[in-house]
Amino acid sequence: MIKFKVPATSANVGPGFDCFGLAYSFCNEYKIEKSEKMIIEGCDPAFTGKDNIFNVAFLETMKKLNKKGSFHVYYKPTIPTSRGLGSSASVIVAGCKTANLLYGGLKKLSDDEIFQIASKIEGHPDNVAPAIFGGLTASTKLDSGIFYHKKYTVSKKLYFTVLIPNFKTSTEMARKLLPKNYKKNEAVTMLSHSTLMIEALQSGDFNLLKTVCKDYIHEPYRKKLIKDYDLIKKTVEKNGDAVLLISGSGPTLLTISNNKDFAKNLKLKGTKALWIIKPMKVAK
Amino acid sequence: MIKFKVPATSANVGPGFDCFGLAYSFCNEYKIEKSEKMIIEGCDPAFTGKDNIFNVAFLETMKKLNKKGSFHVYYKPTIPTSRGLGSSASVIVAGCKTANLLYGGLKKLSDDEIFQIASKIEGHPDNVAPAIFGGLTASTKLDSGIFYHKKYTVSKKLYFTVLIPNFKTSTEMARKLLPKNYKKNEAVTMLSHSTLMIEALQSGDFNLLKTVCKDYIHEPYRKKLIKDYDLIKKTVEKNGDAVLLISGSGPTLLTISNNKDFAKNLKLKGTKALWIIKPMKVAK
Repeated sequence: MIKFKVPATSANVGPGFDCFGLAYSFCNEYKIEKSEKMIIEGCDPAFTGKDNIFNVAFLETMKKLNKKGSFHVYYKPTIPTSRGLGSSASVIVAGCKTANLLYGGLKKLSDDEIFQIASKIEGHPDNVAPAIFGGLTASTKLDSGIFYHKKYTVSKKLYFTVLIPNFKTSTEMARKLLPKNYKKNEAVTMLSHSTLMIEALQSGDFNLLKTVCKDYIHEPYRKKLIKDYDLIKKTVEKNGDAVLLISGSGPTLLTISNNKDFAKNLKLKGTKALWIIKPMKVAK
Repeated sequence: MIKFKVPATSANVGPGFDCFGLAYSFCNEYKIEKSEKMIIEGCDPAFTGKDNIFNVAFLETMKKLNKKGSFHVYYKPTIPTSRGLGSSASVIVAGCKTANLLYGGLKKLSDDEIFQIASKIEGHPDNVAPAIFGGLTASTKLDSGIFYHKKYTVSKKLYFTVLIPNFKTSTEMARKLLPKNYKKNEAVTMLSHSTLMIEALQSGDFNLLKTVCKDYIHEPYRKKLIKDYDLIKKTVEKNGDAVLLISGSGPTLLTISNNKDFAKNLKLKGTKALWIIKPMKVAK
């Protein structure tokens, strides 16, 4: 039996829509072994059929390895599903890793080869890159068709906390809400915000972060799907020591603060939904 | 008499519209001394009146220094004007530096203080930042009203060449050509291109550069103002070892190559205008 973990991730991280991703030391743990037939245990039975993404990822990786065989996996989905925390990217990466660990032998695929397979299945590399490489990543698909990622190290001066609600949203629905066009000043502002957000997260410059974390691409549209958003934003940002972003397509919210006691002191009052306040360490 | 140089700069650098700037070791040299009345020599007489930007910058800096006095400057405008090579940013920065060097005494302003004054006069920090700090810069105006810049070091694996034509264009006209709205996929693509262009220029990863240098904000609209653009683009990019960008708002074009002999081998045939091919070193 082999054990490994794949982390929860926040895509977008404010101005990095479909590009940035952040990995946390909050993971699904997968226990795997070779098996004559596919067995998936521990998670919701809805995710144990042959067409589930774990198996799809396993089979794609087996094809690349040019191997035949099956697996038995046990995992408790610690990362909640449909919350914007990259649970599907975690499961896809885990499927790839399962094939690689059980059947890769001496010719195991590199992390980058797994990144290519998993990004293709997921459709976007933004959750997959941090799930594999950790830290903060910017990723995209190059003209050559190859997925590219760059990893950055996040400053220890910044403290991350996710607020996870007891309701779900659909990524597909969240994607449909985006407008077809953006105003010139919005599109232009996003260039500098995305570039300098990377710098703010690397350096921990919180004054810079407060300006450049602002997003005009997805957050103004998606916040409508998230109950309590305006109330929470006001509460989180009232002392000027934290900003509020949407994790992936939501509904989980992500706060970034320069105050290490921020999560401890945060009280959400008057919300309609139940929110879990969960401090996060960025995965190395 | 004091001598100092302020470099030519290319703003935008592809996907970094109104944000990125690149400084070259191709400069205007300014010779200055204290004087009872303003004297500007060496340049076009049209730029020697009291309302010229050198004097405006000088006076703004004197105000900040809380000093009174005037100057005599001699400079030959080596950086051609109205070509998208940051000649006005060079002159504004030089006006600020003149006040600081002649009258700053023991309380000279820092480079960042000069950056604040010069960016305010220029309206944008994108040419001013590299003119002061050198290298590659990303700059913006923060919500606090303060101008921010980050400097990056450009890889030695990349070779820069500017193509300067014998005609001028107006920045104002080039700005008016931009559309009011951009399509979603254009705006979204620009986020990753701008962020990863910084990475491509730092690392010298030319494969990455070829994808992420593509701009959808200004180049498709401004190229119409530049005679020979399509012909030159085809010529520059035919061997796959160089890309063509517009320097600032043009009409100067900027090529980036991974081939050190690129400029030497480049022949522009059949162009309507005269083009000077000028290899550039990035200023430190």
